[in-house]
Order: sequence, then structure tokens, then C-alpha cells
Amino acid sequence: MYEGVVQDLIDELGRLPGIGPKSAQRIAFHLLGSDPADIARLQEVLGKVREGVRFCEVCGNVSENQRCRICSDPRRDVSLICVVEEPKDVLAVERTREFRGRYHVLGGALDPLSGVGPDQLRIKELLARIGSDDVSEVIIATDPNTEGEATATYLVRMLKDFPGLTVTRLASGLPMGGDLEFADELTLGRALSGRRAL
Amino acid sequence: MYEGVVQDLIDELGRLPGIGPKSAQRIAFHLLGSDPADIARLQEVLGKVREGVRFCEVCGNVSENQRCRICSDPRRDVSLICVVEEPKDVLAVERTREFRGRYHVLGGALDPLSGVGPDQLRIKELLARIGSDDVSEVIIATDPNTEGEATATYLVRMLKDFPGLTVTRLASGLPMGGDLEFADELTLGRALSGRRAL
Repeated sequence: MYEGVVQDLIDELGRLPGIGPKSAQRIAFHLLGSDPADIARLQEVLGKVREGVRFCEVCGNVSENQRCRICSDPRRDVSLICVVEEPKDVLAVERTREFRGRYHVLGGALDPLSGVGPDQLRIKELLARIGSDDVSEVIIATDPNTEGEATATYLVRMLKDFPGLTVTRLASGLPMGGDLEFADELTLGRALSGRRAL
Repeated sequence: MYEGVVQDLIDELGRLPGIGPKSAQRIAFHLLGSDPADIARLQEVLGKVREGVRFCEVCGNVSENQRCRICSDPRRDVSLICVVEEPKDVLAVERTREFRGRYHVLGGALDPLSGVGPDQLRIKELLARIGSDDVSEVIIATDPNTEGEATATYLVRMLKDFPGLTVTRLASGLPMGGDLEFADELTLGRALSGRRAL
């Protein structure tokens, strides 16, 4: 549609997730009118990403140093590990301000059809951590979908041999602020079977 | 929120128009998992944009060569010029497949409050073109908003001294497929005053 570099830029931007042809065009023309220094900064950070991002050697979260901020914080409870799929899940749990332990980022969930088996996830590293640190509880916080549930089931099986270790799973049920009438059957079913005595 | 390069990338992406914090995060994690060659391509095209994009020496549209595809197409009618604000407007008019003349891209619209006066637009170049080529009609296709209307009015004043030159403006009125009931007063007013005999 356009010629030369502009069309190349629109094409490249359009390959990014959530950016359609119209947004790609808008961003491209924004960049055409941008300060070259701004473009240079974006280029530079892309270069750093290309060279490889560092991950925390303990939990596998993205990190600036060998250990991430959470794993190097001495106020964090070492005996408590929250297992999540992705770095963004760490952020979600952190936002609750209810968790004072550490994390373990698996790097995904079991999904054999996409070629993700136990060896593609950081499960070995989790078992090693539990073996060496004095861990008393592992909270499995994988997503409440097919892959996340399968991963949770697999982890429970791997963790049941550690003596004195409690393995828990995030509660499933009605979302707060939600409407009972609009809850799907599966969620309402989970809420029923997980009901608590008051 | 995140550490190191990942947060830098999210920040840079979040500065682009139409990309909020959630999208920036999604794109950043997509790039983290991308083939380095894909990132390199994006980097490279940004570099080319930073070095400067070429514009057609005749019409001012973005171009790969000295002259854009439209201006170097001998089948295009040289006597007809459609004046638009931005390169994306050229594309919009081209999509109608109703226009066989050439374009003139002003590079914006008059907007004194933002410091855009006649000298910031490619108006001198338009007058030179009309003086040298044998132009019989100039269609003013600036946006139907305050700035676009002001630009159109200014252009009409500049062009009225060319002998034998017809100056026209795109029709304003109800959009096709629209609903009369939901048309704003201004649009319906324009549609009324611009009514045609059948």
C-alpha cells in the first residue's frame, strides 16, 4: 500500500500481537514524526532483548541481576513458594499484597499438543529448591484452565513424596464483585464444591 | 514493576500511540519469546526510519524513489490534483478507485495554535506545480474539521488568481450507510445546504 521503508515498518509492527493494520499505520506515522532519539531508545532496548534477557537463578522470573528483587529480599519467607506459569503472574500475586513468600516461575504450563512437557518447564529446579531450602508449603498458582490444572495435578504428584511439605492450590470460585446469575457452570460448580463453613 | 530490560521495553512500547500498559506488557513478552531474527528486522526498519524516510519530490507522499509510484505513472491525469493533508489520506482516496489524477500531500493542516502556518505546509510547492504543469482542477480533500476547513479556505484564496483553474472541495453530507436520525446537526446542516436536484 505504501512504498519503501514506511510499508516495511507497518508490516513489522503489524506482526506484533494485538496490533492490527490500522494501529500499525498509526504507530508508523507517529514514529516517522518522532524525535530520532526516541526511535534510537526503542532500537537499543530491542537490541538488549535480542541479546537475551536475564532470569533470576532462583525463581526464574525476569531479573536485572543474578537474583531478582524478591529472591534477594531477606524479609521474604523462604519456607513458602508460590508456583506460577509466567513472570506476569508474579506481578498479579504481588499486587494482592497478601503473599510474603517467594515465587517459582515455570515458564508455561504442560501442553503436550504444543510440545510442552515437564522437561520444558522449570520443574526440576523447583524440586531442587524444595530439597535444599527448608520449604514448608508450596502454593500452586497455575491458571485455572485445562493446561494449568494439568500442570497442578502433575506437580502434586511430584511433590507428595517430600516429607512434611504442604501442597495447596489457589481457591476456585465466584470472582468478587461478580454476579451469581452470570457465572458459568464450571465456576459455580467449583464454588459449590469448595464452599466453606461460616 | 518488572526489572531491567523487560521494564525498559514495556516503557518504550507504552509510549507509542494506542498502546496501553497491558498491550505493552503483552508485546514485550511476545518479543522475549520471539526469534532474534524477527527482532533484528524490526530494529533494522526502525534504523531506516531514523535515518529519514524519502518523500516524493513531486507530491510529497512517502516514496521509495525520488518520485512515488503515482507520480511516475504515465496513465495518471496530470491536469488533476487532489490536495490532502497526510499520506494516509492518499490511500483513502485511492481505495475509492474513482480518482485518476495525482496528489499533493500538504503534510498537515493549518493550526496556528500548534505553530502550523502556511510555511509549515507544502503550499509553495503546490503553487509551483500549478504554475508549471497544465493543471485544470484542484480538488481540496483536507479533513472536514476546523483545521481542514481553514486550510481549504486559505487554499481557495491562494488559487483564485490562476486563470482557468477550477478549485473544488469534497462534498460534505450524510455518510453512506448512516442513519439520518443519528447524524449530528453540523453534518445534517451541510447535507441540507448541499442538497442536489434529482
